[in-house]
Amino acid sequence: MKVGIIGASGRMGQTVVGLLEHTDAVLAAAVVSKQSPCKGESVAGVRYQSLDEVVAAVDVLIDFSLPQALTENLQFAQRTQTPIVVCTTGLSAQQQRLLTDAANEIPVLYARNTSVGIALLEQLVALSAAAMADADIEILEAHHKYKKDGPSGTALALGEAAAQGRQQSFDQLNAGVRGDGERQPDSIGFAVMRAADIVGEHQVMLAQPGERIELTHRVSDRNIFARGALSAATWLAGREAGFYTMQDTLNLKQTLARLLDSQ
Amino acid sequence: MKVGIIGASGRMGQTVVGLLEHTDAVLAAAVVSKQSPCKGESVAGVRYQSLDEVVAAVDVLIDFSLPQALTENLQFAQRTQTPIVVCTTGLSAQQQRLLTDAANEIPVLYARNTSVGIALLEQLVALSAAAMADADIEILEAHHKYKKDGPSGTALALGEAAAQGRQQSFDQLNAGVRGDGERQPDSIGFAVMRAADIVGEHQVMLAQPGERIELTHRVSDRNIFARGALSAATWLAGREAGFYTMQDTLNLKQTLARLLDSQ
Amino acid sequence: MKVGIIGASGRMGQTVVGLLEHTDAVLAAAVVSKQSPCKGESVAGVRYQSLDEVVAAVDVLIDFSLPQALTENLQFAQRTQTPIVVCTTGLSAQQQRLLTDAANEIPVLYARNTSVGIALLEQLVALSAAAMADADIEILEAHHKYKKDGPSGTALALGEAAAQGRQQSFDQLNAGVRGDGERQPDSIGFAVMRAADIVGEHQVMLAQPGERIELTHRVSDRNIFARGALSAATWLAGREAGFYTMQDTLNLKQTLARLLDSQ
Amino acid sequence: MKVGIIGASGRMGQTVVGLLEHTDAVLAAAVVSKQSPCKGESVAGVRYQSLDEVVAAVDVLIDFSLPQALTENLQFAQRTQTPIVVCTTGLSAQQQRLLTDAANEIPVLYARNTSVGIALLEQLVALSAAAMADADIEILEAHHKYKKDGPSGTALALGEAAAQGRQQSFDQLNAGVRGDGERQPDSIGFAVMRAADIVGEHQVMLAQPGERIELTHRVSDRNIFARGALSAATWLAGREAGFYTMQDTLNLKQTLARLLDSQ
Repeated sequence: MKVGIIGASGRMGQTVVGLLEHTDAVLAAAVVSKQSPCKGESVAGVRYQSLDEVVAAVDVLIDFSLPQALTENLQFAQRTQTPIVVCTTGLSAQQQRLLTDAANEIPVLYARNTSVGIALLEQLVALSAAAMADADIEILEAHHKYKKDGPSGTALALGEAAAQGRQQSFDQLNAGVRGDGERQPDSIGFAVMRAADIVGEHQVMLAQPGERIELTHRVSDRNIFARGALSAATWLAGREAGFYTMQDTLNLKQTLARLLDSQ
Repeated sequence: MKVGIIGASGRMGQTVVGLLEHTDAVLAAAVVSKQSPCKGESVAGVRYQSLDEVVAAVDVLIDFSLPQALTENLQFAQRTQTPIVVCTTGLSAQQQRLLTDAANEIPVLYARNTSVGIALLEQLVALSAAAMADADIEILEAHHKYKKDGPSGTALALGEAAAQGRQQSFDQLNAGVRGDGERQPDSIGFAVMRAADIVGEHQVMLAQPGERIELTHRVSDRNIFARGALSAATWLAGREAGFYTMQDTLNLKQTLARLLDSQ
Repeated sequence: MKVGIIGASGRMGQTVVGLLEHTDAVLAAAVVSKQSPCKGESVAGVRYQSLDEVVAAVDVLIDFSLPQALTENLQFAQRTQTPIVVCTTGLSAQQQRLLTDAANEIPVLYARNTSVGIALLEQLVALSAAAMADADIEILEAHHKYKKDGPSGTALALGEAAAQGRQQSFDQLNAGVRGDGERQPDSIGFAVMRAADIVGEHQVMLAQPGERIELTHRVSDRNIFARGALSAATWLAGREAGFYTMQDTLNLKQTLARLLDSQ
Repeated sequence: MKVGIIGASGRMGQTVVGLLEHTDAVLAAAVVSKQSPCKGESVAGVRYQSLDEVVAAVDVLIDFSLPQALTENLQFAQRTQTPIVVCTTGLSAQQQRLLTDAANEIPVLYARNTSVGIALLEQLVALSAAAMADADIEILEAHHKYKKDGPSGTALALGEAAAQGRQQSFDQLNAGVRGDGERQPDSIGFAVMRAADIVGEHQVMLAQPGERIELTHRVSDRNIFARGALSAATWLAGREAGFYTMQDTLNLKQTLARLLDSQ
């Protein structure tokens, strides 16, 4: 698989380049902005170049650049009919529409969080919230001491997954950070810990009288986000045109159908 | 809902009777064996009686009696066209065939373990093992100090669920209890703890470089098994004829279809 | 050991009576208030009686009654020279002085929380906070859904233990419940979960770059508070006059001296 | 503080050098063997040199070299009256005697495992095993998939600490890895997990009916061993002659005395 990386000189881009060495895939293009001081330098045997200079054949693109480059990146992907994994965060509604438009012609996978484990956890939480319909749901997250917001965006996304599983509105269930005061039925409360260099841990607890389930995800290495992007790219290369998310790469529907048939 | 309990004077039967007081359902029949010394005594306003004495209308039966009573119990259920939840353990292959035969005419739900949480955990493990196809899987369980077998039957069932998720044979993956020696790729190892009065805890870990998921179930009260049986009975009453398991009560397929459509 | 229980007909008193059956100790007196409707009834072969009726020999008293009975209870203990474990909560400063006064003549052990595990945890936290002087400390607690206050009194006591270990003021370190905003150095944050019937769980995390310690206590059965009171009584019987707490029953000083000498 | 590192070009040595940049301490000498190809090269502004070339003033030495260099290293430390932290593993009984001999003249701290958290955990386990004398003790450890031995040496050391706390022989208590068969009273069982890249996690559970304590240590970064060595060096510099271990750096005795006095 020939991989093109857009934003190749950034932290995430460099990490993906480093990971490629340990896989069957090869770096086919290392894209930086036209103004980048890296241009012309070499990385893993390939020259940093701007998108308009790319002529090499590419099987899949991974975009770790910035929102303002999205239009150009998608145009390139469409023109060359190349599947693209977009990992840019902070897209406007209009930019998100560019993604779904492009998805009519090429495979587009949009991932704000490229952790495979978190994508899976969200689905498990939604399924569990539906299956244990009477269970009380609480969400705990722990991060490093420099993190400024709390609860984390991922914790809130897990709360939304739980609400979706219950076909309820997260806004109505969200009790915010738990502290003083009695628990409202059906509310979802958050617990937050901040210490040292914890990369990121999330736990969703579903408790009913006498038993509980805890669904936990722990990250020990930031590299997993690069790894997840690469794994999404592998999944996307060769698909047909369409709009995909990390959830799709999990193939849960096919797995569940197979499981239920075999039982 | 009018509930008939077979094996009503046993520990599980009595617990279900006790739970009924806190629900909308009512105890319609409390069945004991013909030789039971309890016969004629009263429980929750109902007399203990043998199955051939039951004339009250019953919406669903819960069977916590013994394998040798299965034939009679199923005949009664078929004759009266009553859905039946069978919680008997240690059924022979022949007795299991009785269940599937009866399921042609009435709804039959067979549950060796009536914990809703464990039924859910098994499905989550299978899905996760498939979605995180490269993750190393290890299973930890903790029980009270009197438990004689290890790993627990539930831990092994979780291992089987993981193997099923990966479409592999559990016999080949099963590395038994972990101790000395390097880990074989793709093997599933077990870790066992025994202490005090721990009712039952299971954790399945799926770890890949830099991240891991831990799926944990904790029981703090044996009553959950009675609660799960009652919840299965509520689900079964009014269904059409067929053979069901605890997994079916989770409605995962419908939930997942809904989730994936809405994304 | 002959045990006298004051407040014997209350929930805690009854639990202690129940536990005595499984020990070498015997119930020598079951004390209730003069107005109690139980008076004259029998429990475990002993009659409920008021304190002024007690003539049986008693080796140690356990007081699970109310603050307003404290004066009378201590007078009885002093007059009969009987060691007394006082488990009453909500004592005024004046009533606490009654305890230390009595402790000049008899052994008095005062325990607001009779869990042996919690008493130990407090000491472990203080030691750890001192030994890992640069670690960030965060405290997590989970309780049942009906609990109204948060963080729990025990969580706050653990925070005080940590502050004491660091020779700092808890009031200055206490950051309250963690939510939004960056962590202040040296602050201690609290995380709160409320769900179902969780009896009580506390975890103190001490994290520094690359490693962390988690000190966790889990209760699965309220009976432990009765068990702890009985164990404190066993420890107290035969001691010399003085004021003691649950911490003293742990004998940590002797253990540590022994450990350090042997290394 | 001026630090001299022996074995400065090895993995641990280099890590300590890297850490020094973020502290008030400075690298005063970077010692390698006489045959080292690094000799003459420069690191952090200092030249790699052999021990006999060192003339710079050094406040404390950290020895991450090999057992065969121990004699020379200790002679240098004694001659220059410099405190030394010895982190060499695999010392013979005779070499350990060299350490205690040198300790008559200079401060010597011997640490096979330089994790501060593990040193603390061992003491907490011993104290807890003594204080909760009837609790069942079980030890869980998880490491990466390449680890060949199990249970880990640290897990066994924690078992020994528990036995020491109870004044019992670990050989008699050690039940090895738990699997099939009923738990023997007073035995200590081990549970082992192996997966992916887990650096090292240990948990000691002390369970008695209705409550339990879990003492857990998690490492997310191998650098902590270098950090612990540096922290031990800081503690050792300026002490009087004597033989010390990581446990001594925790100052538990003084802390406990202070805690018990203040209560």
